[in-house]
Amino acid sequence: MASIGDIPTTIVTEFLNSDTRETSLVDAEDPKKVKFTVTPVQNDLSPTSPNQNQNDLQIPQIRIPIYNSNRNEYQRSPRLSRAPRSPRIPRSPKLPKLSPVHASNKNGPQTPFTQFDFADSETEPTDTLTQNSITALLSSKFKEFHKRMKQYGENSPRFRKRLVSKWESLNYDPVESDLALEEDERNKSKKALTIKAVSRWVIMFFVGIGTALLAAGVQIIVEIIAHHKFEFIKTHLDRCSKENCLIIPVLIWCGINLGITILGAALVTYVQPKAAGSGIPLIKSYLNGVRIPGLLTLGGFISKVFGVILSILGGLACGKEGPMAHSGGIMAAGLGKGRIHWCGKKKKEIRIYDQFRSDHEIRDFVAAGAASGVSAAFGAPVGGTLFSVEEAASFWNTELVWRVFFSAMIACFATNFLLSAFEGHPTHLSSPGLVRFNTFPNLTFDLIEIPVFLVMAVFGGLTGSLFVVLNYKLTVFRQKYLHRKKWVKVLEAGVVAIVSAIIGFVLMYFIKDCTEEHPYSHHAITSNMFCDKGHNAMSTLFLTTPEGCLKALLHDPIESYGVVSLVVFIIVFFLLGVWTYGLSVSSGVFIPSLAIGAAWGRLVGLGVIQMFPDQTILANATDMAIKKGMHKNEAKDVGKYALIGAAAQLGGILRTTISLTVIIVECTGDISFGLCIMLALMISKWVGDFFTTGLYDMNVEVSGIPLLVSEPPPLCDHVKASEVMSHPVLSFQPLETVGNIIDVLATETFCGFPIIEPDPKNLRHGKLKGLILQNQLLTLLKKKIFAPEGMLPPSNVTMADFDDPYPVELTKIEEIEANISEEERDYLVDLRPYMNKTPYTVGPNFSLPRVFKIFRGLGLRHLLVVSDDNEPLGMVTRKDLAKYRAESKHGMLKIENLKIEDN
Amino acid sequence: MASIGDIPTTIVTEFLNSDTRETSLVDAEDPKKVKFTVTPVQNDLSPTSPNQNQNDLQIPQIRIPIYNSNRNEYQRSPRLSRAPRSPRIPRSPKLPKLSPVHASNKNGPQTPFTQFDFADSETEPTDTLTQNSITALLSSKFKEFHKRMKQYGENSPRFRKRLVSKWESLNYDPVESDLALEEDERNKSKKALTIKAVSRWVIMFFVGIGTALLAAGVQIIVEIIAHHKFEFIKTHLDRCSKENCLIIPVLIWCGINLGITILGAALVTYVQPKAAGSGIPLIKSYLNGVRIPGLLTLGGFISKVFGVILSILGGLACGKEGPMAHSGGIMAAGLGKGRIHWCGKKKKEIRIYDQFRSDHEIRDFVAAGAASGVSAAFGAPVGGTLFSVEEAASFWNTELVWRVFFSAMIACFATNFLLSAFEGHPTHLSSPGLVRFNTFPNLTFDLIEIPVFLVMAVFGGLTGSLFVVLNYKLTVFRQKYLHRKKWVKVLEAGVVAIVSAIIGFVLMYFIKDCTEEHPYSHHAITSNMFCDKGHNAMSTLFLTTPEGCLKALLHDPIESYGVVSLVVFIIVFFLLGVWTYGLSVSSGVFIPSLAIGAAWGRLVGLGVIQMFPDQTILANATDMAIKKGMHKNEAKDVGKYALIGAAAQLGGILRTTISLTVIIVECTGDISFGLCIMLALMISKWVGDFFTTGLYDMNVEVSGIPLLVSEPPPLCDHVKASEVMSHPVLSFQPLETVGNIIDVLATETFCGFPIIEPDPKNLRHGKLKGLILQNQLLTLLKKKIFAPEGMLPPSNVTMADFDDPYPVELTKIEEIEANISEEERDYLVDLRPYMNKTPYTVGPNFSLPRVFKIFRGLGLRHLLVVSDDNEPLGMVTRKDLAKYRAESKHGMLKIENLKIEDN
Repeated sequence: MASIGDIPTTIVTEFLNSDTRETSLVDAEDPKKVKFTVTPVQNDLSPTSPNQNQNDLQIPQIRIPIYNSNRNEYQRSPRLSRAPRSPRIPRSPKLPKLSPVHASNKNGPQTPFTQFDFADSETEPTDTLTQNSITALLSSKFKEFHKRMKQYGENSPRFRKRLVSKWESLNYDPVESDLALEEDERNKSKKALTIKAVSRWVIMFFVGIGTALLAAGVQIIVEIIAHHKFEFIKTHLDRCSKENCLIIPVLIWCGINLGITILGAALVTYVQPKAAGSGIPLIKSYLNGVRIPGLLTLGGFISKVFGVILSILGGLACGKEGPMAHSGGIMAAGLGKGRIHWCGKKKKEIRIYDQFRSDHEIRDFVAAGAASGVSAAFGAPVGGTLFSVEEAASFWNTELVWRVFFSAMIACFATNFLLSAFEGHPTHLSSPGLVRFNTFPNLTFDLIEIPVFLVMAVFGGLTGSLFVVLNYKLTVFRQKYLHRKKWVKVLEAGVVAIVSAIIGFVLMYFIKDCTEEHPYSHHAITSNMFCDKGHNAMSTLFLTTPEGCLKALLHDPIESYGVVSLVVFIIVFFLLGVWTYGLSVSSGVFIPSLAIGAAWGRLVGLGVIQMFPDQTILANATDMAIKKGMHKNEAKDVGKYALIGAAAQLGGILRTTISLTVIIVECTGDISFGLCIMLALMISKWVGDFFTTGLYDMNVEVSGIPLLVSEPPPLCDHVKASEVMSHPVLSFQPLETVGNIIDVLATETFCGFPIIEPDPKNLRHGKLKGLILQNQLLTLLKKKIFAPEGMLPPSNVTMADFDDPYPVELTKIEEIEANISEEERDYLVDLRPYMNKTPYTVGPNFSLPRVFKIFRGLGLRHLLVVSDDNEPLGMVTRKDLAKYRAESKHGMLKIENLKIEDN
Repeated sequence: MASIGDIPTTIVTEFLNSDTRETSLVDAEDPKKVKFTVTPVQNDLSPTSPNQNQNDLQIPQIRIPIYNSNRNEYQRSPRLSRAPRSPRIPRSPKLPKLSPVHASNKNGPQTPFTQFDFADSETEPTDTLTQNSITALLSSKFKEFHKRMKQYGENSPRFRKRLVSKWESLNYDPVESDLALEEDERNKSKKALTIKAVSRWVIMFFVGIGTALLAAGVQIIVEIIAHHKFEFIKTHLDRCSKENCLIIPVLIWCGINLGITILGAALVTYVQPKAAGSGIPLIKSYLNGVRIPGLLTLGGFISKVFGVILSILGGLACGKEGPMAHSGGIMAAGLGKGRIHWCGKKKKEIRIYDQFRSDHEIRDFVAAGAASGVSAAFGAPVGGTLFSVEEAASFWNTELVWRVFFSAMIACFATNFLLSAFEGHPTHLSSPGLVRFNTFPNLTFDLIEIPVFLVMAVFGGLTGSLFVVLNYKLTVFRQKYLHRKKWVKVLEAGVVAIVSAIIGFVLMYFIKDCTEEHPYSHHAITSNMFCDKGHNAMSTLFLTTPEGCLKALLHDPIESYGVVSLVVFIIVFFLLGVWTYGLSVSSGVFIPSLAIGAAWGRLVGLGVIQMFPDQTILANATDMAIKKGMHKNEAKDVGKYALIGAAAQLGGILRTTISLTVIIVECTGDISFGLCIMLALMISKWVGDFFTTGLYDMNVEVSGIPLLVSEPPPLCDHVKASEVMSHPVLSFQPLETVGNIIDVLATETFCGFPIIEPDPKNLRHGKLKGLILQNQLLTLLKKKIFAPEGMLPPSNVTMADFDDPYPVELTKIEEIEANISEEERDYLVDLRPYMNKTPYTVGPNFSLPRVFKIFRGLGLRHLLVVSDDNEPLGMVTRKDLAKYRAESKHGMLKIENLKIEDN
């Protein structure tokens, strides 16, 4: 433990005594050494807060606060001076602020701050040990690196220590209103229930089939065209290496790459920018509960699918597996909604059925779609299912998992059938996924090999972190300088495509590594550039898709590649991979990661065989393989080292855990070797986590997406709901005037509003009666569900109208306002039939971990904080919770209080 | 859909209009046809409820209700007439009953009943369609069977339609009291945090190692002794079949079986009856959140481990895989608690460390232990992890799953190492689990074979249901007649052991099936009883452990067993399996199920090869195998049919889903064939679910364990929290007299009590301030944490004292009462530092699905229902929710309202 003590960190502990409301920053090593103490103002309405006192008038008045996104707090709006339209309704947003502790020290005497501000960017982030902290024992040895890494983190806090306010939660909590219950009752006939239950399974079936068709289609198109492309280049290379006209094939190569890539980049950039990258971080965020507009649209689907075809044909170092998960998810969402929606300038919709419109149902379908995508891509139904479930954490529900698994199975089966059919023997079912590691001649292993695998895993973790760091730096650079204009994005992709081609050529040209070994794949294209006998080894790796390259590295005979070739290839491909990921093209990172790992794994394998040439420590494993009837040379295979390298590299870059392990094992098709793969993935993840977060998490952080992890942040037991919540919160009355609603919606970004029944004795207080959502209000206003006082409002609104987020999202409050006459502003909306009568609530003293548990466990969008008297005090939203981020770096834990920014 | 309409069912729909409080039972087909209407009494204190009126006196008086376990409701106790000891404290248990709807019809004019009573045993259970109801489409064709099954269900409702009141919930929700927060603060030093985090991983490591040692130990002991036993019997058989003294080996065989089995049964029956059976249903219930006393004790461990060794050596048709999960769980719990606890008559304890005593932490360790057990047994780390996670449903937490997976990996690795070492080559790592299906020569398959597999899956589902039905009947019979006395249990086990031996002998004797094929296993013992050439085929199946039998059926050459032998074996072994499961011995059902399935799968394989002898439809698969260099005869293997049969049979009996699939696939070691296995498991589950629940679920039902499934029961949207809750609920004041507490605890079975601050104006009402647990109160009383009024009570109590359930469980309130003097009864206990200040609450209008979601999602033990004014109205416990059971049978859904009985 002593080694940990060496690190100069202080724990910031926070005492909040509920009686004295005193906040202290103390040194954990010596609790008596209080650094500063914050004594709060005892009463909000005391003279120390004069601007609140102004409003303490007897005449009820409308005061609409505006949202200050930096502070996450409301301030009174000085702009709004519209006279109160309905003096009957003395809504009071001025509820007693529970614990707005005012700082009484030098730091800022007048600034109210919610607790934990001390972890802001100005103060040093507080480090203490994490649960992952076995690795912490190593930390003292990495002090040097630690410092440099710290600088990297501090250079650009703008992108990693913030949440972007535009990301809203999905609403998984069904609205339990009178209307909903009534409709439920009406639809609860035997027939409707049957149809719904059966359709759910039928849709799952079609999700599987659809994903398989998609996967097989993409695979076949890419294979055919890529083969022709490289065949064409190879012919010219072969000819020109003799005729000395090598500039011609280079230009052809660059030209093809440039043209196709530009097309792909333009498609993504101009049609749906959300289709860029692998899509997995976004799908994970969606399943976590973040609403991501545009993610599941037809435009996204087209950009994703054609984009990935073009990216690979354009010669970029990327794969098509990640995008499969995303496009499977989009397809599933479309099938679930029974509607195709075009989210461009022309809004178009085709509607077929609408039973499954709620966020909850659609999430289930998207989970199945993503699982099917992964399953089809890797032939891994279990892995695919776990992939979906892992992220949708609190929603492990046996019934749902069973459906998702069914869909993943169908996808895997159908892909297998289609690809087998393409290969000419449809009934063999021998191609279960797009990527297969295929059969290795010798996957037996000996206990003595495990240390080698361990070292490889550590290396994988280290290089994986490096990949993430470099890509992060590049992403920041891109966001700052390059991605302001769309054409620059497209141009960058074009440049990468040209560079990829040139690098391929230069490596073939300068490293004249000739080999006579036949490549493993029958379809491999080899150029005999400058080779009298055999072919240029580099050409096998570059005149193919990245997938072909991976297959070659895993399976080609032991003598196929020289050491120099491999070393140069690793460095170059690593850098190309870093550069390619994050371009505005549809591209996956699985395959390049695996290829890099396989290359250095092969190098390790060569080393081991070199060091122990014949009666080696590996004799056991080799013997066993020979016993199985294998030729001795065949048994001496580097394939298993390449495989471990690939797994370690992938683990080091992505850090996904269980699902990835299962995917790789399923992809290998051999269970007993699976143990070694698991070991490699586990160690590489640990080593990687010691330095940085994973690539996908980095992506999420850079986008400022408020992801909720499965555990509440540690060390926050003393933070109360009243400190986390946004407050004061605006409420409506059960019968509210149209004008009030419009005024509030026009200035307010909240998505839900409590409804209170004002106490006749004290009009400023009222008990919570329900909760109404922003989109419900917009729909009600749009459909003019209001009437003058004393008259019954129309009731031609159904739950389906509310379930439909898109029309409302696209409806601006201004448009609605314009449609409402001055007279109508005094009409009343009866909110009672539409409000959720049983919103989840917590008391102000609930601790952050408890609030977190409810919010995450129940999949909420907003959680009301109510007083002892059931009066709404504030509202907790996803961002309020996500901003307490526990970041584990170098085995230490930082609790950061992220800023919420507009972009 | 018409086929469904044919079944004569009525939907019972329930309207609860919140204004009129009117309950109606209507025909869903024709909502106007109201069958009867229940109009509630508007006011509790109205003259219609005279016995409540009696208590409506002005003088405060203690009224302690007693629990009526049949009604799950409180009645005033006529017995208690003790005078109020502290008139200061006018606690009023008579809170306004929210909706105690009184039936006004003939059914019972004076009986208050909570809604949904109509689904009681008297009224017809209401059928409607389930989510699983694809199978419902088939239902009309099964009408005949349907009727008979219905009778089976109704014959003995006593065991299946009840919950047993003794089962309590575990408390996964941490108590957030002042004391807890304070201690938390104190322990939150860097060092303590590190140690805790690291120890968690270290314990996980040892859980894995321990389970592996255990598994390998059991395996080695069983293998060695069983080999000698059967070798001994074989020698006598061989000799006596020539010398005509066959009575001698029969007697020897019966004697050995009887002796060993009696020993095993006595161990289980007298030391720890919870160790009977496979333990998986109990472990699943525990992980689901049910407290099962005795499950995780040292006595249970010894009974389980030695019991299973004795059962197998005793010749019973059972496996050792299920018990591995249980004993792994016990070991993990022991390691987590850092304490060995002997729960017999002599209470003994060895304590080492106590950081992980809370239910929450222990559950995590038990999950890891169960996963490790499964992982070691089947060599299936992923399957084991899923097994644990599947049941602990709402607790999928990436961090935890990662630890569980780690532990399962270690277990798998270590078992592999130990077993390889036992076989003489420790570094080969070639024995990843106790059971391996080993390598099949030919697991390629053709699309055309899939229909055959499908038919097999359906057959597996059918026979699986039959197994469950027969075993259920037997269980009921046992509970009624046999298991009243312990020695009868032991005797029954002895009888089964003798019958097993005799059956083995009889089959060998009468079916003179001689074969010259060499068995697959080198260790196989064959007797050449009556065979001139070769050996008696039956002897290969009976002179071995059930595991050896399974291996023989999967791998022995195609000609090894005749058709007659197989048919007889299947029938006999099926019945033996049914009879064995449920005996009071430690025994698993995996292996016998697999063996039955493998036997009939083999039969199907023989049939297929017979029907298509040479240029068959299977030519493709056979060709491929031959291409791989296999001999033609070898390629014509029935092994894959046996494997599918085994999977289908297991799926049909157990119905566990994802985890089982993964386990079987991992056990096979071949992924591409995994698709067929998944298919077989999926279809057999569906077919089985059409008729009955699975074997484990049946077990749980028979024990009356209140398991909470992952989804709330359907069709219950209109049931409100106020109807579900137990009420009225007894509350305490923050400063409560010792006497009051003792009186309440002595008569009350609730585990938690709300603490209210009585309103000075209306002493009968009070706002909820916190929640105190029964074991907290007992601890406080036991440690005498009270003082006369005005004096400070001692504070020598820590959270660890509360975390410790055992001492309190074993402490009777009577003992405590005896220790407290008459004067001390007026002392005050200050409950404020110990109470959970932020209990989760819901309003009375929350619907059952919402209440269910909170309860299950947050792992609660009790959920308070509070009024609009934050006054406690009632309490929802696990049993209140679990009694609404949605049972899916014949593709239809029944919502049953189970009774809560004492035993």
